[in-house]
Amino acid sequence: MGQFGERLAEVVKRKGPLCVGLDPRWESLPDCYRRLDPEFPWLPQVAEHVRRFCVHVLELTSPYSGIVKLQAAFFELFGPPGLAAMQQLIHHARELGWLTILDAKRGDVPSTAAAYAQAAFTGCSINGQIFPIWNADALTVNPYLGDDALTPFIEAASTQGRGVFVLVRTSNPGAGCFQDLCCDGKPLYVHVAKVVERWNEPTVGPSGLGDIGAVVGATHPRELAELRRTFPRMWFLVPGYGAQGATAVEIRQTAFRTDGLGVIVNSSRSLVFPFHPDDPNWEQAIQSAALHARNDLIG
Amino acid sequence: MGQFGERLAEVVKRKGPLCVGLDPRWESLPDCYRRLDPEFPWLPQVAEHVRRFCVHVLELTSPYSGIVKLQAAFFELFGPPGLAAMQQLIHHARELGWLTILDAKRGDVPSTAAAYAQAAFTGCSINGQIFPIWNADALTVNPYLGDDALTPFIEAASTQGRGVFVLVRTSNPGAGCFQDLCCDGKPLYVHVAKVVERWNEPTVGPSGLGDIGAVVGATHPRELAELRRTFPRMWFLVPGYGAQGATAVEIRQTAFRTDGLGVIVNSSRSLVFPFHPDDPNWEQAIQSAALHARNDLIG
Repeated sequence: MGQFGERLAEVVKRKGPLCVGLDPRWESLPDCYRRLDPEFPWLPQVAEHVRRFCVHVLELTSPYSGIVKLQAAFFELFGPPGLAAMQQLIHHARELGWLTILDAKRGDVPSTAAAYAQAAFTGCSINGQIFPIWNADALTVNPYLGDDALTPFIEAASTQGRGVFVLVRTSNPGAGCFQDLCCDGKPLYVHVAKVVERWNEPTVGPSGLGDIGAVVGATHPRELAELRRTFPRMWFLVPGYGAQGATAVEIRQTAFRTDGLGVIVNSSRSLVFPFHPDDPNWEQAIQSAALHARNDLIG
Repeated sequence: MGQFGERLAEVVKRKGPLCVGLDPRWESLPDCYRRLDPEFPWLPQVAEHVRRFCVHVLELTSPYSGIVKLQAAFFELFGPPGLAAMQQLIHHARELGWLTILDAKRGDVPSTAAAYAQAAFTGCSINGQIFPIWNADALTVNPYLGDDALTPFIEAASTQGRGVFVLVRTSNPGAGCFQDLCCDGKPLYVHVAKVVERWNEPTVGPSGLGDIGAVVGATHPRELAELRRTFPRMWFLVPGYGAQGATAVEIRQTAFRTDGLGVIVNSSRSLVFPFHPDDPNWEQAIQSAALHARNDLIG
């Protein structure tokens, strides 16, 4: 397995920058997936229906994307059966050739971060045997605990050709509350991005991009443009397109490098749930939304 | 169920400020728990052995503590069976009267944070039925995404008498990397603490303490003392005692209010693993460590 940054460049060249965001909200699933047998425990049924829906979303969107992001919260909400479904989905997606990003925003003190990193990448070691756990291609992580708390994630990723996306400037309306606080003449998120750059630079490959990227919301185009100029060799995972409000034109103008690389654009709700649950044509709606988003982003 | 801050005050008055930190590292378990049947899948066996060990730790330490903190990373590392064990442990501990803190350091954009908050507190709603997921008394959360991203946690907690501990100044050596950056004359962690205070103040009960607390590492006594002075009505969850290096005298002098409340002190490794795996007297070692820590902290 090659380096994460190079594998990502290859997928984006082949299929474009669209990332399919799996945030499986139960109440948004098509009606046919929400019928449960009252005779049996519900959460395992729920998790299995969610898994099958997500597999079908991958089938429907595979002509338009090669990157999938699983939002851990929406699997955790279904308890251990939901997390088992998440594990199976990551495995299945990788078998089909998708690049998988586990969006779990993990972060803790170094010895604990090492456990999260093992779960994400290197697996669990039991009496000399290694058991893969989530086994994703990349993980999102939270920088608040500092540089030493990011190290275990970056080291575990580097041994296995995996990637890490560090939260830099998030897409929520209140992101600036702390991220925009100005310290030594620079906002906090730029301090974070500089630490990410230090980790990323030694990993830059032939594509001119590395393995350690940043999460930068499309909902803040000025900050996105400035970060692109300052950090040309860093992959950006960009949420906020579609349902959250940013347009493809804004993203194309601000986030892409001139070679068309450097950014993957996540779309969750507007790509995976562009229908009412009782709409019988939900499959076509997903395909149309994916086709539209792919073309919209390529411009 | 009463407010979290009041329930915590009641437990601390009755049993002292010691919090038992369950970070079940496989390689540290007593030998008798690490024998696996090669005929059967290992991770479910591992999770069951870990669960039984943790139940026994609760039995051994219950004379000395009424608060338990489960570190989600060390359960996640055993995959879905590990997380099922975590769920069972929280349920079991609550049945026995322990206050349970899920140390998962969650954080995401508001609509996703709502899913994590439901998993932690209010449960998962499926076709009109509610299923409890982790159902802990309190959750640790990461503030990097900002005030609006904390709101769902605090709202979900408030409807059910639960608590939230926001990371303010963590115990790792590199915590200051971002947390100490100075913005408008104050370090970032004080900006975070001020937002926590705004959430906490309306929840302050008869004990003079509220439901929304802060994680403040004992390894930074100067910062801990300053935060105590500035925020006298806020519960502090204090890691860093024992294996991480801070002494009880330092914590007593810096973190406690004059009424002896306001702080719970977590001990994980030095309390739960004060033995070599082949030591047949590991149970006595845990009891002695808990007795010592309790007395040490009460002074």
